[in-house]
Parts: sequence; C-alpha cells; structure tokens
Amino acid sequence: MNSAKCFKMFFKLSWKISPMYIVLLFFNTLASSGQILINVILPKFLIDELLGERQIERLLLFGGIIVLANLFFTWLTLTMKRVMDEKGIYMREMMNHLMSEKIMKVEYSYLENPYYLDLKERAVFASNNQSAMENLILSVGKLFNSIITLIGLLVVMFSLSLVLVLFLIITIILTFVAQKKFMKYQQNFFGQIIPVNRKYGYYVGLAYDDKLQKDIRLYGMSPMLTKRVRQYNDEINEWFTKYYTSQGSYLGFLSIINDLQAALAYGYVGIRVITNWFGSRIGIGSFTMYVSAAIKFTSSVSTLGEQVMSVSQYLSYLHPFMEFMELPEEEKVGGDLPFEGNVDTIRFEHVTFQYPGSEKQVLKDISFEIKKGEKISIVGLNGAGKTTLIKLLCRLYRPTEGKIYINGHDIFEYEHSSYMKCMAAVFQDYRLFAFTMEENITCKEPQEDIKKASELLEKVGLKEKVESLPKGIKSLFGKSYDEGGIEMSGGESQKVAIARALNKEASLIILDEPTSALDPLAEAEIYENFNHLVGDKIALYISHRMSSSVFCDKILVIDGGVISDYDSHTKLMEKQDSLYYKLFHSQAINYSS
Amino acid sequence: MNSAKCFKMFFKLSWKISPMYIVLLFFNTLASSGQILINVILPKFLIDELLGERQIERLLLFGGIIVLANLFFTWLTLTMKRVMDEKGIYMREMMNHLMSEKIMKVEYSYLENPYYLDLKERAVFASNNQSAMENLILSVGKLFNSIITLIGLLVVMFSLSLVLVLFLIITIILTFVAQKKFMKYQQNFFGQIIPVNRKYGYYVGLAYDDKLQKDIRLYGMSPMLTKRVRQYNDEINEWFTKYYTSQGSYLGFLSIINDLQAALAYGYVGIRVITNWFGSRIGIGSFTMYVSAAIKFTSSVSTLGEQVMSVSQYLSYLHPFMEFMELPEEEKVGGDLPFEGNVDTIRFEHVTFQYPGSEKQVLKDISFEIKKGEKISIVGLNGAGKTTLIKLLCRLYRPTEGKIYINGHDIFEYEHSSYMKCMAAVFQDYRLFAFTMEENITCKEPQEDIKKASELLEKVGLKEKVESLPKGIKSLFGKSYDEGGIEMSGGESQKVAIARALNKEASLIILDEPTSALDPLAEAEIYENFNHLVGDKIALYISHRMSSSVFCDKILVIDGGVISDYDSHTKLMEKQDSLYYKLFHSQAINYSS
Repeated sequence: MNSAKCFKMFFKLSWKISPMYIVLLFFNTLASSGQILINVILPKFLIDELLGERQIERLLLFGGIIVLANLFFTWLTLTMKRVMDEKGIYMREMMNHLMSEKIMKVEYSYLENPYYLDLKERAVFASNNQSAMENLILSVGKLFNSIITLIGLLVVMFSLSLVLVLFLIITIILTFVAQKKFMKYQQNFFGQIIPVNRKYGYYVGLAYDDKLQKDIRLYGMSPMLTKRVRQYNDEINEWFTKYYTSQGSYLGFLSIINDLQAALAYGYVGIRVITNWFGSRIGIGSFTMYVSAAIKFTSSVSTLGEQVMSVSQYLSYLHPFMEFMELPEEEKVGGDLPFEGNVDTIRFEHVTFQYPGSEKQVLKDISFEIKKGEKISIVGLNGAGKTTLIKLLCRLYRPTEGKIYINGHDIFEYEHSSYMKCMAAVFQDYRLFAFTMEENITCKEPQEDIKKASELLEKVGLKEKVESLPKGIKSLFGKSYDEGGIEMSGGESQKVAIARALNKEASLIILDEPTSALDPLAEAEIYENFNHLVGDKIALYISHRMSSSVFCDKILVIDGGVISDYDSHTKLMEKQDSLYYKLFHSQAINYSS
Repeated sequence: MNSAKCFKMFFKLSWKISPMYIVLLFFNTLASSGQILINVILPKFLIDELLGERQIERLLLFGGIIVLANLFFTWLTLTMKRVMDEKGIYMREMMNHLMSEKIMKVEYSYLENPYYLDLKERAVFASNNQSAMENLILSVGKLFNSIITLIGLLVVMFSLSLVLVLFLIITIILTFVAQKKFMKYQQNFFGQIIPVNRKYGYYVGLAYDDKLQKDIRLYGMSPMLTKRVRQYNDEINEWFTKYYTSQGSYLGFLSIINDLQAALAYGYVGIRVITNWFGSRIGIGSFTMYVSAAIKFTSSVSTLGEQVMSVSQYLSYLHPFMEFMELPEEEKVGGDLPFEGNVDTIRFEHVTFQYPGSEKQVLKDISFEIKKGEKISIVGLNGAGKTTLIKLLCRLYRPTEGKIYINGHDIFEYEHSSYMKCMAAVFQDYRLFAFTMEENITCKEPQEDIKKASELLEKVGLKEKVESLPKGIKSLFGKSYDEGGIEMSGGESQKVAIARALNKEASLIILDEPTSALDPLAEAEIYENFNHLVGDKIALYISHRMSSSVFCDKILVIDGGVISDYDSHTKLMEKQDSLYYKLFHSQAINYSS
C-alpha cells in the first residue's frame, strides 16, 4: 500500500468516525492562521499612530481591536481544544474498536501467520500507544495551518518586495530538498535497526515476564540475559549515535537556512528603514510589521518542515493498521447455504494440508467418514497432525487439496455463522475469561435463568466448588481487573471449559486433550460421564491417555500425516504390530503391576 | 512513598546513570535563558540607534551582536540536542536495564502477588512507554529554564517599574493557586477512572489477543465483547467530557490571567510612551524591549505552569518504578552458609503454608524425610498442595510455620546462589526461550564444547530431531525475532526442558508433570530412562499418570494439604481404602480391557 492510498483510507475512516472533528479542525486551522496574521499586521497601525498623531481615539481603536481579537481567538482556541480533546479520545477509542472487531472477524489463518501477527502487533501499537490516527489528524491540521500562515506572510512581504519573496521561496525549496533527503536516510535507518530492536525487545521482555522468573532463578539465567540486554543496548546506542550525528548535520543545515531567511528579511527591512536604495523609506510601524512577519515566517517554515515529517511518520505508523483492515473477513468466506439441523455425517475426501508458507505436508491425502452419533478417538504421536485435522474441520484453515463434507455438502458451502453454531470444541490451549462463571459458560450477557449453567457445572463435577463461592455462579473468574475475582486450579478450569462446550448444544463436540490437567479421580469422573454428557452427538476426542479410546466407537490412528488405521479398540488390539497396539500397550504395561 | 522522596530517588538514580547528562542539561538551561534575555534587551539598542544617530558602525555592531549571539545559541542548542538525544536513549535503556535486573532479582513471592504484579506492570509501562525518567529530566530542565527566564524578565521590567513587577508576581501566584486546585481535581479524576479503564483495557486486550481467537470464533463471543468494549468506551467518554469541561474552565481562568498580564504590561508600557504620568517618557527602543519582555513573560508563566504539571505527572508515573526498586532482593534473603556437596537428606518439619494475603492454609503441619538417592512420587488431587510443596523447597516462598532442612540445615541458612545450584526443576509451566537449542539446555553463552548438550539431547530422545535440523544444536528455537527459528511440538519442548534440568548437574531433581504433553511412546521412553537419567540423585516426581509411581521408591500422598500416606507402591496398594489405591485403580481399570 503506498502512502497516498493509506492517506486516502485514513481520511475516509476519520470522516466516517467523526465528520464534525474534521470540520472543526479545518476552522480551527483557519482561525489560528488568522490570529497570527492579525498580530503581525495590526501593531503597525498602532505604532504608526503612537509615533504620529497620537489620537487617543485611534490608539484605543487599534489597541482595542488587537486586544479583542486576541481575546476572541483565545476563547476560540480554548473551546476548540476542549472539543478536540474529547473527540480525540473518541477517535482513539473508535480505532481500538475497529481494530478489535477486525481481529475477531478476520480469517483465522492470518492469526497463526507470523507476518500477519506482526502486522497486527504493529497496528495495535499504532492505535494504542502512538495514537497514530489522532496525531495524524492534528499534524495535518498544523501542516495546513503553517501553509495558510506562510501564504499570508508571503503576501505581507510581497507588499514590500517581490524579489525578497522570491528569495524566501527559494529558501523554502532548499529546506524541502534537505528534508526529503533526511527522511530517506531516516527511513533507511529505522529499517536497518529493526532486527536489533526486535532482539533487544525480546530479551528485555524475557526479563520482564513474571511467568519466566521461576526458570530464570532456578537455572541462574540472569547473568546471561543481563549480558545480552546490555550487548543489544550498546549496539542500539552505537546506531543512534550515528543517527543523531546525521540528524545534527540536517538540523544544522536547516538552521543555516533559517538564519539566511532572517538575515535576508531583517537586512532588507533594515536597509529600507535607513536608506532609499530599494524604494522609498518605510516607517517604524512597517518596520515592526515586516520584522514580526519575518520572525513568524522563519518559525512557520520550521513548523511546516516538522509537520511534513510528522505526517509522513504517522502515515507510516498507520500503514499496518490500514493493511490489516483490508484483510478478508471470515464471514465473507464460504457460501450462503445456512446450516440447519444436526451434524449427521462427516466425510474427509483426499484432504491434504500444508500451513501457508510451509513446505511440509502436515496431512496427506486423508479420507475417512464419521456416521451419526459415533464417538471417535483420534490418536497418534506428537506432531502427527491430529490438532490440524480438527482445525480444518472447524474451518480455521482451508484444505490445500481435497474437501471436507458435512451432511453431504462441502463445509465451505455453508454460511459462516450458522456453520460455527454446529460445533463446540475444547482445545488444548483453551482459555477462560475474566467474566463470571455463568458468562464463561454461556458466552452471553448474564441471563435471569441460570438453571442450565448450574446444571452443566454439576455435570462436570463443579457443584461443590461453585456452592462454596460467596457469589456462586456469579463469581468473577480471575483477578485481571478485580481483586475480588476467584482463582481456580488447572483441573477446575478445564471442567469449566468442558461445561462451556456442552452449553453450546452443538451437534458435533470436539475435545482436544480435555483431561490433561485433571487428577485421576476427576479424569475418571469425566470419562464415566462422557457418553452421558455428549449424548447422541458426534464426538471427536484427542488424548494421549490411551484408556480413553476404550470408550469410543472407532479410533482414527494418524501416523505422520496419513491414516494408518480406523477401526474399533477391540479390532485394533488384535493387530499386535499396529501403532495403536504399541501406544496402548506402552501405557497399559505400567498399570499391570 | 511521597513525591519528595520519589524525586530524591530519581535524582540520585539519574546522577548515577549519567552525571554528564545532568550537568549538560543545567548549562543548556542557562544558555537558553540567556538567549531569550539577549533577544529581549539588545534590539532596544538597535532601534534606539535606528531612530537616533544611525551611525553605521554602531548599527552594524548591535546587529552583528544579535546575529552572532543567535548563531552561537543556535549552534549550542543543536549540539546539546544531539548529545541529549543520545543520552536520552541511554537513560531509557538504563532504566529498562535496572528494571529487568530488579525483576530477575526480587524475592520471587512478589511476582505471584497481584499488588506487586500490577506495580511491576506500571513500572515497566513508565519506563517503556512513557519514557518517564527521560521526560522528567527534560521537564525539570524546562521548569528551571522558565524560572531563570522569569527572574531575568522581572529584572528587566523592574527597571521600568517596581509596582508593575509586584502586580505581575501577584498574577503568577494566582496562576499557581488555580493550578494546584486543578491538579488535585485531576489526580482525583484519574484515580476514579482507573477501574473503568482496567475493565476497558481487559476487554480490548481480549479482542486483540490472537491466542483467544479460536475460542472467540467457536463460541460466537464477538458480539458480547464488542458490546462491552463499546459500553466501557461510552463510560470513559462520559468521564472525559466532564474532565475536559473542568479543564476548559481552568484553562479559561489561566488565559484571563494571561490577558490580564498582557493588558497590565502593554497598557503600562503604552502609557509610559505617550505620557509622563508615571515617570519620564520612554523611547520606541525601550517600548519594544518592554513589550517583548511582556510577551516572553506571559509565555514563560504558561511554560512554568505546564512544566510544574509535567514534573508532577512524570513523578507520579515514576512512583511505581521507585517503589518496585525498593523491594527486597532474593540474594539478601537467607544466610551466608555456602551450600557444598550434594543434597543428601531433605526433612520437612511441621511445615504450614498459606499464600500471602490468603486465609487458606495450603499445607498443614507437613513432616516427612527423604533419604539419599530416593526417588519420591508426590500424588494427590488437583489443588492438594503438591506444587506449593515444591515451591517451598525451591525457596520461592518461605513456610508460614515450621522449617525445611537439607543436610541438617534450615534451607534459609544457605547462601542464595549456592543453594539454587543444588536443584533442577521442570515445572508444569516451564518455558523455553528463543535461544539456540544449546543455549536453552546450558542456559549459558554458547560453548565450544557441545558434547554434553548433544548427549543430553540423545538421552531425552531428540537425537534424530536435532540431526534433521539444518543448524543442528545451534538452531534457533521459535520465531520471536527471527523468521528462521524452528518450531517444536509440546512434547519435543518438554524433552528439551528435561535435558535442561539434567544439564544442571544438580543433586536434587524435581519434575512436575514432566510428561503431560508427551505421546505414549515418548512417555514410555522417558519412564524407561528415568532412573538411568537421574542416577543416584534425589528425585521428586509429580504426575497425574499414576503408572509413574511404580518406578519410585516411595510415594508421598497429599490430601487437602496434609500427608495422608508415605510409603512404597506395593505397601500402599495393600490398603484398598487409601486415596492412593483409588487414584491408581481409577486409571488402571481402563487399561485392563
């Protein structure tokens, strides 16, 4: 995306968020340019009067206009500041809002792709920490302001001398040439420093992360981390020393130009006061006007330069945001067919999959079928492709080749949200939220009727726990924003996650290592209730605890991305050379003593 | 900690980090005050000359001094800017450095306490995002600058009229009174808005977190999250509308004071030019000088006010940083006795423990002994206190009552770092780092001799995996800062973590759920090698996979914080009503088919 497109998107977006903000900003800009010009021009008349006839009425008139105009502009500026500050917060929040909605809607596969994850991080950083949108708008305002002011001042100077104005314009052009060159250098510099910065950030992040401190202490890693942080520190410092030297030369050049402007303007104005070499002499009033015009002129050129840089900087901050906003959304993926009824059959047909950007085929030409009400256990070694298969079924990824059919239709024919309703899953890395227990289970705003959620908590064996809590099912989970939140063990959380999955009343239930954190009794409890909990739904079950396969109708054995077996426990145990037999036996033998 | 103490600590700290920076800042401040005064005073002489004798030499002299002085100050400012920018980066990095060292050294228990975790977050935010240290120094510099400038300007004005100066001082006092009131309001306001902001931050954070997106999609949580984000948005907006209205009144009052100052100064100066009511008439040169002194005066009063607010704001940002820096460090906890030799015996004597701030006793009057070379399995239900027992042994917490002895000495008698060397642990929530495989195992800078690390990788069953990697044992783990990093499954990572623990050559090895993510074959492999891997060291072993207990000499059964049994597998299996029998049986039964 180029800067022009980014700027256009930015303008459209900010207009959409708050047209009023843009309009106000425009008038604010005009007003503040007006104030500058009035303060340059009016004092001339006051001084001329002071040095001339000293008519009290006229002195009061000019003085009065200056004072009143300034009072008016001050009032205007303050009012605008208040309105703009409010709107600024609104803009920032709307940007957060847009971004968070987008993340929740974007096609899931982008969120496991390092490039897009990095893009997301940068986009979030732009909106959260750099207030890029708000700052860009303000910079555009100031840029516009300095342009208007410069034009006004050039007109004033023009009334003195065309040649002087031409000289001044040449200095502005020189400024821009230098600036363009420096910006290119700057861009280059920040591009080059990224890798060092990422490493530095990573190491500092490690040292800051409280979750790592047990390991850091036990393995005495502090000296190594400290050394690396220091090393990257030094490296960054070296880079920046070079950078600031270049910046110094650039700013030095700018100040020479600025001095040249001042010398030109003051010198010329001075000569016009004491000689008539370039035209008739001017009075002290005009002298004051031209000198203050010259002062404002040099400062406006600086402001212009600064704002051009700010605009370009904030635009570059916004790049990732705009790029992320353009990513396709999940809802638009797939067809229009609404998913209705239950999941009766699932069929994988020659499904092959490799992660985007990866060479390796995680699944190779997988075909199998699941019939109504079947409980299927998926087993295999670590990295065999079990979780990937589940992700494909959940439409989090699209098969590289082949198709997945549910009830006879390619799953991508179904309309997205109705499809998502048909399945519930507890992933290995499931997460609960700092909501109440009830909200964690229902994933909805609190209901008056908590009967269903309570029943589910009882089913998964959390009845006593919930009853022991002061606020029961309305207890807040975790202390993220409230000290009063309750804490739960890994096993208890896993039970809540299972209750959440059951609450969904989906006709396809997927459990990926659902009991890994549970103690043997809790595990046995879940196993015993499993068939009862799931009812006549299709259930897919991934677990390294081979004993869980015994409860299932069929076992899908995946070995290095291909299906090596698909049969019942009894049948598979007959084949003593099968992977399944080995897996089961290796655990069973330890319990036989 | 009060602001004065915080400021004192800040000053000591910045002096320690870079005394040169402070000295430079001081001179920079003086120089920039000097420039302002020169530009106020010298033009008077130029103008007097222009309106008077117009001697070319004197005109050139005054003009020359003004131009040269400004050139000199511009050069000085630019040079200082370059040096200060560099030093600024250095300051920020040193703050990161201090903070990261502190986190790695602070007593561990603070890092599991919500209050101190929050303090840490705020301290990190101050140093990372608000550049609080650097900004505070700059603000103090500007504050100092505006005070010096104001004093200089008051001296200039004093040469005109004592009464005028007194009036101006009164306006400054009025400004301060208003400011103090507003700052109090501000502090109050930001205190009140914290809870809403935390909730808002939490919900936005949820929406931003890519790890949660699977669950958010599957459970259709997007509408609920969006609604809450919007709701807290609105709430914050309402708060800020009120805030900006108050700020508006305050700024309005300030601008009235500012206008009053201007009217007083301009009016008085004007009267002195056209009348001799308050003394002899002054010339246009003096008029210009006093007017520009008045302009600078009002702007310096504003700057002074702004900087007082900035200083107080940055000080409040630094509060958490300073508070965190004062926390006691692990190394200073415990005695001086160096730990030498091996861990031969471990004895818990009446150990009771409750987490700081919690009412609940997690462990109650625990006593047991472990002899040389014993392998102990610790079993119990979720939440029984198994992991807490390990944390106490690792000195991550201190027993509330009772003592733990190793080789006959209370573990807190030992000197910290030598004690930490005697034990290696793989925790449930162990973490690997984006280092090379070798560095992950040795936790040290890369060595020339990689034999030991390679052998350990072979022992834990990763030989083939490592050999398949292009850079072998020097391969970078994870993609945190390098796209070329390799990725590993949960099981493979767990094996690396076990290799890291074995590398430490500690005489006490602790494994907390070391095989939970491993597939049955990998699990069996670790079990088979277990005794061989651990050798004659004492080993503590926590696992929900009961079969692992069979390999151990004794089993410590914890039930609700107390020891319910401590015996060998065979003995414990004889007691059919024991918790251990139930736990073992509940898993074994599923493998008996």
